[in-house]
Amino acid sequence: MITQSSIERFSDDLASGAPTPGGGSAAAIIGAMGAALVSMVCSVTICKKGLEAVAPEMKTVREQSEKLRLRLTAMVAEDVAAFDALMAAYRLPKASEVDKTRRAEAIQSTLRAATETPLDCARACAQVIGLAQRAGENGYSGVISDAGVGVLAAHTALRSAALNVYINAPSLQDREFAQQALAEVHELLEAGGRRSEAVYALVRGKLG
Amino acid sequence: MITQSSIERFSDDLASGAPTPGGGSAAAIIGAMGAALVSMVCSVTICKKGLEAVAPEMKTVREQSEKLRLRLTAMVAEDVAAFDALMAAYRLPKASEVDKTRRAEAIQSTLRAATETPLDCARACAQVIGLAQRAGENGYSGVISDAGVGVLAAHTALRSAALNVYINAPSLQDREFAQQALAEVHELLEAGGRRSEAVYALVRGKLG
Repeated sequence: MITQSSIERFSDDLASGAPTPGGGSAAAIIGAMGAALVSMVCSVTICKKGLEAVAPEMKTVREQSEKLRLRLTAMVAEDVAAFDALMAAYRLPKASEVDKTRRAEAIQSTLRAATETPLDCARACAQVIGLAQRAGENGYSGVISDAGVGVLAAHTALRSAALNVYINAPSLQDREFAQQALAEVHELLEAGGRRSEAVYALVRGKLG
Repeated sequence: MITQSSIERFSDDLASGAPTPGGGSAAAIIGAMGAALVSMVCSVTICKKGLEAVAPEMKTVREQSEKLRLRLTAMVAEDVAAFDALMAAYRLPKASEVDKTRRAEAIQSTLRAATETPLDCARACAQVIGLAQRAGENGYSGVISDAGVGVLAAHTALRSAALNVYINAPSLQDREFAQQALAEVHELLEAGGRRSEAVYALVRGKLG
């Protein structure tokens, strides 16, 4: 499992000319780090004397950010699998007409998965941004900058995942699905961009 | 060494209520991933038939991005050490006047290191943004989205590191150093923001 490899090993693999891991996997890891930082702000706040009033809210946020963290962590391997499957489809033989049909079908089905995986990642990151907002508003001031780093990470992961939807959606023959995916990503980017800048400004303001 | 731990382990530690690793370490890892993606775009482009003309430029970029990747990877542990040292200084006894003086001195010297470490990180990330621009302009179109993810990662790491300078600089008694650090971070953020958005737009445009 790729997320069981060390940070240094993953970084070396990312830097190499090998097709995977690539930007999609990096996006999922960055998104998971965003979720982890939200969880951390909640974990610290929950134990803080004087902040008992926000503890239930922070527990609710952490429950959700932990679920998203696990989901995004799983997406690292899913992205590698989706990309490898697409590359394998492109390498299928195309000598006969039967070959060509089989190859085209394989490309379309793997292309769909390679669009759905980053779309799922973008959705999860948009949710992390919402949770970072709640952590930034209610979290303990001593760790509030971590909510800021968390929201930046989630937003970058969202924008990165969007790039992979943009790459794959145009080649999909199922235009209805492709247009839906592009429209959804556009909406996630719009809302996520506004919201994450608001959280960063909130955190920046609290730092004085 | 913290970067030898697995991605999952680091994520678990980040999510916990323990003081380290925190946002500063996450920033350094995200910056290192940005550098790794720049290296990857170069590595793929260098081997591509038909792109021989840009190979020397891509080799130069990769040489620099690999140095920055190693530097940013080392900063993960440096950030943990700087933060732990600062926390230890705050925990020093303050019963007598001698204690108080010693504690105040320890806080100031560790605070300086805790400002210099994220400042170094911000500088390195600004350089990665510049390299991502060159990779985005000259890299092979099949991996160009990775230059986009790389620049987003480097910019988020720069902004995250900046938050840690903002936290620590105000408490520094050496006001000249503090003002210099704040002014430099401000400049890095201004230039880095403009440049990274230009690279993202360039990459987005190439994806069609």
